[in-house]
Amino acid sequence: MPTTPPADPTPEPGYAGTKPQHLARIRRVEGQVRGIARMVEQDTYCIDILTQVAAATRALQAVSLKLLDEHLAHCVTDAVTAGGEEAETKLAEASAAIARLVRS
Amino acid sequence: MPTTPPADPTPEPGYAGTKPQHLARIRRVEGQVRGIARMVEQDTYCIDILTQVAAATRALQAVSLKLLDEHLAHCVTDAVTAGGEEAETKLAEASAAIARLVRS
Amino acid sequence: MPTTPPADPTPEPGYAGTKPQHLARIRRVEGQVRGIARMVEQDTYCIDILTQVAAATRALQAVSLKLLDEHLAHCVTDAVTAGGEEAETKLAEASAAIARLVRS
Amino acid sequence: MPTTPPADPTPEPGYAGTKPQHLARIRRVEGQVRGIARMVEQDTYCIDILTQVAAATRALQAVSLKLLDEHLAHCVTDAVTAGGEEAETKLAEASAAIARLVRS
Repeated sequence: MPTTPPADPTPEPGYAGTKPQHLARIRRVEGQVRGIARMVEQDTYCIDILTQVAAATRALQAVSLKLLDEHLAHCVTDAVTAGGEEAETKLAEASAAIARLVRS
Repeated sequence: MPTTPPADPTPEPGYAGTKPQHLARIRRVEGQVRGIARMVEQDTYCIDILTQVAAATRALQAVSLKLLDEHLAHCVTDAVTAGGEEAETKLAEASAAIARLVRS
Repeated sequence: MPTTPPADPTPEPGYAGTKPQHLARIRRVEGQVRGIARMVEQDTYCIDILTQVAAATRALQAVSLKLLDEHLAHCVTDAVTAGGEEAETKLAEASAAIARLVRS
Repeated sequence: MPTTPPADPTPEPGYAGTKPQHLARIRRVEGQVRGIARMVEQDTYCIDILTQVAAATRALQAVSLKLLDEHLAHCVTDAVTAGGEEAETKLAEASAAIARLVRS
């Protein structure tokens, strides 16, 4: 269920200024996951696969942390500066996203 | 640094019997990560991307847990049944892999 | 290495308004940890102890998430509203704290 | 809902040989949690509390990993050596405990 930012006139996301870096980071994770599939195909020893899955998991978390960082520095900061209900909405939304990250 | 199972005459990994299911699961994660790259390309709202990254992270953890499950039920069980040094090596190795998973 | 909030004239922390609830939550975790010590003393079965340790870990994470929530809604919001260097410092500090949470 | 090890004639837990070390580790976590309560009472800055909560969370995870390690090396190893249904039960139980740890 995608959530659209409520009543936001500027559709530019918080990560707009560093989009190429985010994309490069995500593509690297995609490569890691593809590498894991290849390891399974080649009957690689379980423990070596587990090591790569742990590395890919940490890389995905790094992607989240960078995105969240920019979300706080741009989207949340803009909403807080504007104040009012939008500020509260954005803060509650960020807290919920952090909780999902911590629990994932 | 890949670790090769010490002195194991049968190179068949613990997940040999369920290889297609593991591959399907990993390919699904690969698709999720590719979807995340597409979301960034299309300037999707940060929070919606974070939700998908959390989902992919959980899916990767599920891959690990299934692989570990089979590793314990096959490789570790075989080593323990054989006994001796190999049993200890495999148990220490499994514990280290679990620690990496818990901390990732 | 304790970090003191740089140049903050009001020493009141973000959780000031809900201090009793935070204390009650932390005391409950303390009770859970004491219960785990008692289980070990009484030679309780390993798996049952592990279940309680996982519950205490989740309870500690909930403590963090509530504290962070209030930190964003008060300390960070105040700094962002004031603007300038203090806003950037607080945002960077919050991001670092979130990263520690996600990785712990 | 406590689970009792099914049909186990020896009630000695896997950690019996290192009980004092486990107790010392758990008591240290209890001290950390009590320290966190004190920090809240003294209106310590949110971020410094979060740092301590993350440290206590990691310490709890270390407790789990040590207990699990001994559970695999003793209880699971004994069951696997004995073989049969008990081996399968213990392996499934260990996998479920690992999943709870990874997800907590």
